[in-house]
Amino acid sequence: MLQNLSRYNPDRADEESEDDEEAIENEEDFDAYAYNEPGSPPGTLEIDKDASVPNIFLIDYSATDAIGLQLATPEECAKHLDTQSVSWVDVQGLGSEDVLLRLGKVFNLHPLVLEDVVNIPQRPKFEDYEDHELIIMHMVTPRKNGKGFFREQVSLILGENYLLTVQEEPERDCFEPVRERIRRDKTAIRQHGADYLAYALIDAVVDGYFPVLEDYGERLEDLENKVVDKPTTRTLSKVHKIKRELLQLRRAIWPLRDAINALIRDDSTLISNEIRLYMRDCYDHTVQVIDMVETYRELASNLMDVYLSSISNRTNEIMRVLTIISTIFIPLTFIAGVYGMNFDRTASPTNMPELGAPYGYVTVMGLMLVIASLQVYYFYKKGWIMPSKK
Amino acid sequence: MLQNLSRYNPDRADEESEDDEEAIENEEDFDAYAYNEPGSPPGTLEIDKDASVPNIFLIDYSATDAIGLQLATPEECAKHLDTQSVSWVDVQGLGSEDVLLRLGKVFNLHPLVLEDVVNIPQRPKFEDYEDHELIIMHMVTPRKNGKGFFREQVSLILGENYLLTVQEEPERDCFEPVRERIRRDKTAIRQHGADYLAYALIDAVVDGYFPVLEDYGERLEDLENKVVDKPTTRTLSKVHKIKRELLQLRRAIWPLRDAINALIRDDSTLISNEIRLYMRDCYDHTVQVIDMVETYRELASNLMDVYLSSISNRTNEIMRVLTIISTIFIPLTFIAGVYGMNFDRTASPTNMPELGAPYGYVTVMGLMLVIASLQVYYFYKKGWIMPSKK
Amino acid sequence: MLQNLSRYNPDRADEESEDDEEAIENEEDFDAYAYNEPGSPPGTLEIDKDASVPNIFLIDYSATDAIGLQLATPEECAKHLDTQSVSWVDVQGLGSEDVLLRLGKVFNLHPLVLEDVVNIPQRPKFEDYEDHELIIMHMVTPRKNGKGFFREQVSLILGENYLLTVQEEPERDCFEPVRERIRRDKTAIRQHGADYLAYALIDAVVDGYFPVLEDYGERLEDLENKVVDKPTTRTLSKVHKIKRELLQLRRAIWPLRDAINALIRDDSTLISNEIRLYMRDCYDHTVQVIDMVETYRELASNLMDVYLSSISNRTNEIMRVLTIISTIFIPLTFIAGVYGMNFDRTASPTNMPELGAPYGYVTVMGLMLVIASLQVYYFYKKGWIMPSKK
Amino acid sequence: MLQNLSRYNPDRADEESEDDEEAIENEEDFDAYAYNEPGSPPGTLEIDKDASVPNIFLIDYSATDAIGLQLATPEECAKHLDTQSVSWVDVQGLGSEDVLLRLGKVFNLHPLVLEDVVNIPQRPKFEDYEDHELIIMHMVTPRKNGKGFFREQVSLILGENYLLTVQEEPERDCFEPVRERIRRDKTAIRQHGADYLAYALIDAVVDGYFPVLEDYGERLEDLENKVVDKPTTRTLSKVHKIKRELLQLRRAIWPLRDAINALIRDDSTLISNEIRLYMRDCYDHTVQVIDMVETYRELASNLMDVYLSSISNRTNEIMRVLTIISTIFIPLTFIAGVYGMNFDRTASPTNMPELGAPYGYVTVMGLMLVIASLQVYYFYKKGWIMPSKK
Amino acid sequence: MLQNLSRYNPDRADEESEDDEEAIENEEDFDAYAYNEPGSPPGTLEIDKDASVPNIFLIDYSATDAIGLQLATPEECAKHLDTQSVSWVDVQGLGSEDVLLRLGKVFNLHPLVLEDVVNIPQRPKFEDYEDHELIIMHMVTPRKNGKGFFREQVSLILGENYLLTVQEEPERDCFEPVRERIRRDKTAIRQHGADYLAYALIDAVVDGYFPVLEDYGERLEDLENKVVDKPTTRTLSKVHKIKRELLQLRRAIWPLRDAINALIRDDSTLISNEIRLYMRDCYDHTVQVIDMVETYRELASNLMDVYLSSISNRTNEIMRVLTIISTIFIPLTFIAGVYGMNFDRTASPTNMPELGAPYGYVTVMGLMLVIASLQVYYFYKKGWIMPSKK
Repeated sequence: MLQNLSRYNPDRADEESEDDEEAIENEEDFDAYAYNEPGSPPGTLEIDKDASVPNIFLIDYSATDAIGLQLATPEECAKHLDTQSVSWVDVQGLGSEDVLLRLGKVFNLHPLVLEDVVNIPQRPKFEDYEDHELIIMHMVTPRKNGKGFFREQVSLILGENYLLTVQEEPERDCFEPVRERIRRDKTAIRQHGADYLAYALIDAVVDGYFPVLEDYGERLEDLENKVVDKPTTRTLSKVHKIKRELLQLRRAIWPLRDAINALIRDDSTLISNEIRLYMRDCYDHTVQVIDMVETYRELASNLMDVYLSSISNRTNEIMRVLTIISTIFIPLTFIAGVYGMNFDRTASPTNMPELGAPYGYVTVMGLMLVIASLQVYYFYKKGWIMPSKK
Repeated sequence: MLQNLSRYNPDRADEESEDDEEAIENEEDFDAYAYNEPGSPPGTLEIDKDASVPNIFLIDYSATDAIGLQLATPEECAKHLDTQSVSWVDVQGLGSEDVLLRLGKVFNLHPLVLEDVVNIPQRPKFEDYEDHELIIMHMVTPRKNGKGFFREQVSLILGENYLLTVQEEPERDCFEPVRERIRRDKTAIRQHGADYLAYALIDAVVDGYFPVLEDYGERLEDLENKVVDKPTTRTLSKVHKIKRELLQLRRAIWPLRDAINALIRDDSTLISNEIRLYMRDCYDHTVQVIDMVETYRELASNLMDVYLSSISNRTNEIMRVLTIISTIFIPLTFIAGVYGMNFDRTASPTNMPELGAPYGYVTVMGLMLVIASLQVYYFYKKGWIMPSKK
Repeated sequence: MLQNLSRYNPDRADEESEDDEEAIENEEDFDAYAYNEPGSPPGTLEIDKDASVPNIFLIDYSATDAIGLQLATPEECAKHLDTQSVSWVDVQGLGSEDVLLRLGKVFNLHPLVLEDVVNIPQRPKFEDYEDHELIIMHMVTPRKNGKGFFREQVSLILGENYLLTVQEEPERDCFEPVRERIRRDKTAIRQHGADYLAYALIDAVVDGYFPVLEDYGERLEDLENKVVDKPTTRTLSKVHKIKRELLQLRRAIWPLRDAINALIRDDSTLISNEIRLYMRDCYDHTVQVIDMVETYRELASNLMDVYLSSISNRTNEIMRVLTIISTIFIPLTFIAGVYGMNFDRTASPTNMPELGAPYGYVTVMGLMLVIASLQVYYFYKKGWIMPSKK
Repeated sequence: MLQNLSRYNPDRADEESEDDEEAIENEEDFDAYAYNEPGSPPGTLEIDKDASVPNIFLIDYSATDAIGLQLATPEECAKHLDTQSVSWVDVQGLGSEDVLLRLGKVFNLHPLVLEDVVNIPQRPKFEDYEDHELIIMHMVTPRKNGKGFFREQVSLILGENYLLTVQEEPERDCFEPVRERIRRDKTAIRQHGADYLAYALIDAVVDGYFPVLEDYGERLEDLENKVVDKPTTRTLSKVHKIKRELLQLRRAIWPLRDAINALIRDDSTLISNEIRLYMRDCYDHTVQVIDMVETYRELASNLMDVYLSSISNRTNEIMRVLTIISTIFIPLTFIAGVYGMNFDRTASPTNMPELGAPYGYVTVMGLMLVIASLQVYYFYKKGWIMPSKK
Repeated sequence: MLQNLSRYNPDRADEESEDDEEAIENEEDFDAYAYNEPGSPPGTLEIDKDASVPNIFLIDYSATDAIGLQLATPEECAKHLDTQSVSWVDVQGLGSEDVLLRLGKVFNLHPLVLEDVVNIPQRPKFEDYEDHELIIMHMVTPRKNGKGFFREQVSLILGENYLLTVQEEPERDCFEPVRERIRRDKTAIRQHGADYLAYALIDAVVDGYFPVLEDYGERLEDLENKVVDKPTTRTLSKVHKIKRELLQLRRAIWPLRDAINALIRDDSTLISNEIRLYMRDCYDHTVQVIDMVETYRELASNLMDVYLSSISNRTNEIMRVLTIISTIFIPLTFIAGVYGMNFDRTASPTNMPELGAPYGYVTVMGLMLVIASLQVYYFYKKGWIMPSKK
């Protein structure tokens, strides 16, 4: 039956090509969290009409066996939940209120849990209910061509021997390697319970931040050179965009750290002590992600400062050239203007006698040369004329 | 009797049209909290003469029945308070000291409670008195045309089986959907006590922040484009105004979070454990509101930086054009000026012999061309002349 | 005997008119706290020779009776301290070491308490000694004409059934309404002990910050308009001055909050539980004051940013006008200069033949018009010429 | 024997005159803490060859008696340590490894204590060893002429009935008034043990920060005027220098506060409860010092902002004058240039007929006047020409 | 056998000369932490193909004896681990998955420990496993010529009587002085267990930060002068680079402080109380390092501000010169232009009669002088012409 395991996993990652621009538009909305109409009762579900109809996949495994199925109705889960084996129910898409409500009934979910799972996006968090625990995370995957990242809410509901995961949409997830590990015999994941599976998925989501961040590291390095060499408005926009996207990542990872921390401490009753050790490692990874996000944010802020300084510098250098050329020629032009006046030399001997002097022209030209030289010397002494080695 | 429930609820939300400008003026005062004359005894009430006379509405409901009445005097509440059913007394308007004092007597309110309820605005807070608990909140509703928001203080006083709410003014509240839920049979709200009602109202107030914030998200996105493309003084004013209003929202929501947190923890004796779970959800919403406020504040700050950079950039580009055109023509003008001098060529052969040279004019024009070309080449090499693709 | 109560209260508040300027000078020194010569023993008193000689006023009251006296010597207090009634000893002025030392002896004050009370200014604080408790506060009162505020240290020493207050100087305090409440029969203050009196005075001091802050709110609003419309150096100085004064208020109110908090918690043994409830309200007021101070500080900082942006904007607009006018005329002036050259047309036909051409002048003027039009068109397309609606 | 007490105290404070410049140089190094070669064993001492040879002074006192001696060898201390009287051993100078090691042996110091005492500078701290406690402080004394401050590490080692102090160098300390208090009979210091002496010295060091800070207050006030009136590069350097030195003070006083706090709390076993009360006062003083340092730092930062604004303002005003004068005359000059062209009026009637018109000159001059007036009016309306009241 | 101890320590520090540039490139990558492919199982090792093959060195010592060996296989360690003597196994290089896995087996390492040790870089941390404790640190060594620093991850695994250290690469470490101390008889290190050795190595790593930081102190001092005197784009780049590198140091030392703190507190079971005292000293050193890093960061930020101010200042001064020269000559040039017009004086007596006036030229020249003088006087009064002492 193991061959079934791969059936429900079409190669989604490759479909992202065309809808890039549209996706970028959507991404902008992430700044705002989902909310119900003020005053509406708790547990109200808001269904996005354009969202994909939920696909329900089930993987049921134990140390000795593993099956993978796509289920037609939520109720089909029920019989698998009773067995000793670990049941991973993976719901992809939030487009049907009916299916989601029935799902809630099968898993006996608290209305507030269902609300948080369906009304996306929510802030990452951990919450402990009587017989199940909710973890909300944001999964990020890098876009092609350094265009940022896709973001998708993933909700984990961990029960005694089952794990229910709900993804925003069927495209793209980073759980495929975990599925592959389940498919294979004798992997650690097959020896452990649902808590280990939860750990594996959380770890996959957290590790998914690293390639996205690495991408930003490279983009920042590129910009660093541009900012000093030729700062343009486009550079400014790019730095601003990176700052904005890093802010989004920051808002996704900080609360996730708190959620995982709550999971590790005694808040969670479904996590065994052995798995807690792995969770601690996962927590360390979130700390490393946070460290990188903060570092890149600081680098981006520094870039902004350097950008401003560079612009100032360039303006300054252009000013210098203007000053020197203008102030050298303006007095000379004045002198030329004076001797271009048309006073009637015949009316009086005091009227521009220089014009008739035998060496008048030569003298004036010499005078101009002296004035220009003095100015050049003055500017040079001031340090305003430098060998433009830069 | 259910038909009565709607009588006391005229369609207030539509009356806000004309008084917009005036309201904006009032809003400015929110920076300052209310205070009594220094030295005056605790419990002193300051009545604003222009405030609306208080309207008192009562909704009394149990799982099986619900009535709605407008009361003429505070004392009429008394008989409803003794019953097992939940009594929601909603006071709208703070214009009569007499009515408010009598209200305090009916509900046996501590003088400090009455002071906080009447002397508006107060900072949001939770306070536990012997037999009642006070929650002060700021309710916000979006203005039309993206002109910010209305703000109004709502005070909740929760007792054993009653809830007293006091609103600043009769116009606009976000409680209508809650009233609607009470009117309908078999809703969750009818099955629970006064603590659930308190939760429903607090949740309505908190959720009311989301549409206001969403509005700011859109305004910031609009400004983002303007700031890079054509930054004007008006843009600056707008960004500054948004920053200011977000600061006001921030000051309203942060202390509300603390108040709800105090409510959840063991500070409150009137909240049952089941409701505490709902309150925790409500707390999560305040955290999401705070997250959005802080995000928008950071975006607005970034916009300010980008604005400054854009202005610098534009100045820089204009400077560049000026420099190039000026410094190309200034030396040429000087040369033209020299050959416009009127030295008497007859007085001496050294006086401007160029003027008589057969190819003098052509040579000088050629010289000018060479100088201009050299300058253009120099500026081009410096990168100051670029294809202005921007 | 009640008529005596008003005798000791000359109308001080009105005397502040002339000494305004001098007071402003003194205020500047508040940045520095008082200190003794390094190495001097604890309890050393530094008496300012110019300070007022201490006036000692006593109010002794119980639920049934109240007397007010001005005392000649500190020792006269002694007999009142033994009675069951509440004794409020109010010392105004710090100009006599002898009187202050004797006062310390009468009240059995720890030398460190006396040092803190006399060597002003000290940082606000609460300190618990064996049989008395010290609260140091800074009392602020608004100056006329929006010129900031007066600041004065007030020290409260609370004992079993007495309250000793020490004010820096006899002018101005905000305790008069409290005295009035004592004078009147059947007020709450007459029913309670010394701890309620302490609460009433602390509350009066805290509430005294509100009118001062309201004043800053108005000044900031005024400046906000000026900063965008016509930013001048004077505006800059004003914003800077407000920031500085708000910093002073901040330094006075933050530690006061901590002091009151210490008073509420179990640190204080002289405050009864009932009064603790009132103190909590007073604590809320300090939080509101802090909230307002921080808000105004942020607004002032924003103003500074807007100021800088406005200056940049103005420079930018002026630059734009200069650029356009200069760069339009500079090439034209060059052309005019060329045809003002005096090359000898008789020497050669290549020497400025245009001058003799029949339509030479018209052509050149047309050429100039074309060049100017092209430039205007270019600048318009660049968006540099806009309808100056601002 | 009391006369001996003054022998060991030459008037050091006066010798600081010449070495000012050199001292300033040394001060720069304070940014870096001392460290041993990486990998060297704990307790390694680094002796600065140029440091003064240690002078060892002993004051041994009880309520009834007090002697002062300069000791030749560390071992001479030993016999005084055994007595009931308090022994204050004051070591000045760190120039001899041999003496310091022998000192360590006499007082039975932990190698890490000796390392911290000798390898200067160290960060201020409190550390509790088995039978002695280490407090490291930085003592500051103001330089003449507002040139900043001297900084010197003082280490206190407090034992059962002795106090060992180690100073960096023999010049300047602020302990002389304390010595004077010991010399006099019946002072509080003579009635108490070594813990009171430690308090007195720590208090002297902390109070020593006040005059240094007061000095900065005055310098900042001076600069405040200069920054607005005539900002120069020199002003900028001065503000930068003050910021830097305040940063140094901040780094010295913050950890000292933590050290004193540790001393007050139960960390210290050698401090009696009575002295703890005095220490609390001393702690308050460090808080006041910190408050002043932070205030001055903020004032200096504000000054920097104001400086930048002032520079912008000045540039702006100069730009305005340039714009007005240039843009008024450039078009006029162009017109004059046009009528200076030499088109041959005889060649054609269309060639500059204006030159021959009877009122040509008057008309053109009038035209120029009109153009100039229109410009002046335009600039005036724009608010660019203002009565330069500033 | 002691002669063996030095065999395995070739003089690595000298080989760093050529690969400087390449090393700098590598350093840039430090911003990003290592991570596994998202979804891969815990304990996955990523081997860098270009990394050095691991060299394994063993030092086994007790108070009486010490041997040093290079081991061929990890399994050779096993027999030394069983003895009472302390075994220090030092692995240098991470180039072989096989060797590292076998090493993990010999020391019974948790898979997560091996992952953290091999997949570099990791954030410094302390982690407590059942029978061993992991400390991850970053070792820094200064580059020649003030070009920053080398960074290398060092992992310590402390067991009952062994210490396993894993270094990133065989070149450069700061442990040689520790090896030297082990080689020598009767040093403290020989008297203590593995915990003292761990302390000695951690202390060596921490102390290694000091010379690196000292280097930055000098570079900042150099830049400080340049920034005020002649700020160039190069200076800007340098300040930016220093800020960036200090950020890297900061990210390495802050978590190390937390790790050492965890080691001191009760988290560690393998550290004896005596060694805890030494660790506390080591903790103090990290605090001093942090203090220095933060100080230098603040100094660098200040430098950036001063840089911007200097640039503004220079632009301002250049503007001033331009303004003065231009605005003095532009009106004069206009006047000269007017009298260069060619109006036909014969056509009308109103056509430029000044040209024929006997003192026309002299008067006009005088007028120009007066205008120029008035302008100079005006600029002087405005303070725009100053003795350029700077």
